[in-house]
Amino acid sequence: MAENLTPLDSLGEFGLIDRLRASVAPPRQASTLVGIGDDAAVLHPTAGLRQVVSTDLLLEGVHFDLTFCPLKHVGYKAVAVNVSDVAAMNARPTQLVVGLAVGARFSVEAVEELYAGMRLACEAYGVDLVGGDTTSSPGGHLLISITALGEVEEARLARRSGAQLNDLLCVTGDLGAAYLGLQVLNREKQAFLADPDHRPDLDAYTYVVQRQLRPEARMDVVHTLAELDVVPTAMLDISDGLASEVLHLCRASGVGAAVYQEKLPLAEETLDVAEELHLDPVTCALNGGEDYELLFTVPLAQHDRIRNHPDITIIGHMLAADQRGAFLMTPSGNAIPLTAQGWTAF
Amino acid sequence: MAENLTPLDSLGEFGLIDRLRASVAPPRQASTLVGIGDDAAVLHPTAGLRQVVSTDLLLEGVHFDLTFCPLKHVGYKAVAVNVSDVAAMNARPTQLVVGLAVGARFSVEAVEELYAGMRLACEAYGVDLVGGDTTSSPGGHLLISITALGEVEEARLARRSGAQLNDLLCVTGDLGAAYLGLQVLNREKQAFLADPDHRPDLDAYTYVVQRQLRPEARMDVVHTLAELDVVPTAMLDISDGLASEVLHLCRASGVGAAVYQEKLPLAEETLDVAEELHLDPVTCALNGGEDYELLFTVPLAQHDRIRNHPDITIIGHMLAADQRGAFLMTPSGNAIPLTAQGWTAF
Repeated sequence: MAENLTPLDSLGEFGLIDRLRASVAPPRQASTLVGIGDDAAVLHPTAGLRQVVSTDLLLEGVHFDLTFCPLKHVGYKAVAVNVSDVAAMNARPTQLVVGLAVGARFSVEAVEELYAGMRLACEAYGVDLVGGDTTSSPGGHLLISITALGEVEEARLARRSGAQLNDLLCVTGDLGAAYLGLQVLNREKQAFLADPDHRPDLDAYTYVVQRQLRPEARMDVVHTLAELDVVPTAMLDISDGLASEVLHLCRASGVGAAVYQEKLPLAEETLDVAEELHLDPVTCALNGGEDYELLFTVPLAQHDRIRNHPDITIIGHMLAADQRGAFLMTPSGNAIPLTAQGWTAF
Repeated sequence: MAENLTPLDSLGEFGLIDRLRASVAPPRQASTLVGIGDDAAVLHPTAGLRQVVSTDLLLEGVHFDLTFCPLKHVGYKAVAVNVSDVAAMNARPTQLVVGLAVGARFSVEAVEELYAGMRLACEAYGVDLVGGDTTSSPGGHLLISITALGEVEEARLARRSGAQLNDLLCVTGDLGAAYLGLQVLNREKQAFLADPDHRPDLDAYTYVVQRQLRPEARMDVVHTLAELDVVPTAMLDISDGLASEVLHLCRASGVGAAVYQEKLPLAEETLDVAEELHLDPVTCALNGGEDYELLFTVPLAQHDRIRNHPDITIIGHMLAADQRGAFLMTPSGNAIPLTAQGWTAF
């Protein structure tokens, strides 16, 4: 540890908690009555609204690699991926709590950097950090556990299970870039490990690297849908890759799906980097994961409301229950069954 | 891994999640609308009540040792310590979400055993397990992150900050046993490591070992206080030891405290084991931690309501702000300043 940094053990548990608490923004949600500092936070959920709650773990060595991921970005991403789960219910985030396990190799300043990233994201999404728990990590790995709360009018709640025959299948933003960003970062890491004088030049990869290191939850689209007076019949966020999320949606709704390959939204940068890395951009979109875009279904009758929106792409439609299964329709007219590729990292 | 056990990697992420989901009890709280299975759980918080939210991490190697702590007990304890934070607000637990990181050395059956313990605790406290996240643990250590929600009438909410001059300082149950249980278990572990034929005989230590391995949240006392028509002016749970919790209470309330040594509730078994281990039972009560009893203050005028309750012991009273500080009053009449001993495990 550099001499100008403060070892964690010089503060102790209570000293660290006091210091982190000072770096948390004061609550802005009307429903937050008491934030950090008691045995529990105290909330006053808005009467008449539904509340959603979701939890996510982010582990060093599984979900992020500190050799190329700055701690501030890790903090931002930890909040963003949880807010993304709230967005996937068509809800607005209100509060979150953070559990943190840190190893002795981290300095107080490093943990504060992580918190600075979480604070930035909390401000971006208007969510209050109202509580937490901090402990040492026996293996030394950094671990972040976040539980996010949100709220939504009952009539606007979007679950996974409401997709109907002939509904339009829509996706926000573009797909596959986060996965390609990870490949670029891993390539540069290997080059650095082989030659410590290697200086990575990531200028040509700004977009895909940014998509990997600092994803955004699509809260903007949640607000857009409200403005368009559209309530998705089903919605979820794309964390594991489009293919497995389409399958989740089909299974929960009891329908099938046809996804048109030529409709998949792929950024110019995604196509360029995929070509350079000899990877198929369609496979990156289907199985890459970590895009944190929203996948949702809309009744065919609402086609007019969404068809020209720049953030929304219609990629297919839902099939009848007796055609249960999800297919990729290729430009040549073939229907290829989609398969899920969740992690098998044990 | 024994041949009749199922390796985690044979199921994959989704297979494991499906199997764990099947082991979770169906929701019983009226406020739980949708439990496990979507991007987020959906709740309908009871109108007019305050909601509390608290999060805790439990890590193998920091908070529990699997060489002597059965996984079912670990699961039970993980839920109990979170419910204890809800109890410390004088609230009733309603829902919780669970984040789990498991290493490859665990079998599916081991993870199910952990879940069986959580289910038992959820049933005991009437709380719904409504969501979770499961991932692999890069260091192989088991990690459990739980966030608990609860609810309470505004007028019955008990924070840390309301203690007043002359309030009675009360504690539930008895203190120090959990720490002694840990010492006994560690002693037997060392004996086993030195001699694999060593068979621990824990019969003489049942109470203290039980207090360490399977603590209970004092929800019974939350209900008792309601029946006695007592709202604590301040309350918190004893996780780090009585001394540091008294100091937390004093700091949050801006008062001092006098704790009378001869009033400390110590079980007969605690005194016996402390003597055998040459430990001071008072020190175990003050600094041992993990008792998960409740510490609270009550106006002097309500002395009659609590003085004869078998689960409640009056151990002292609050001092004026100008005597700020917390003291242990010894039988010989000395006033010894209390000092906090949080963990410094980095």
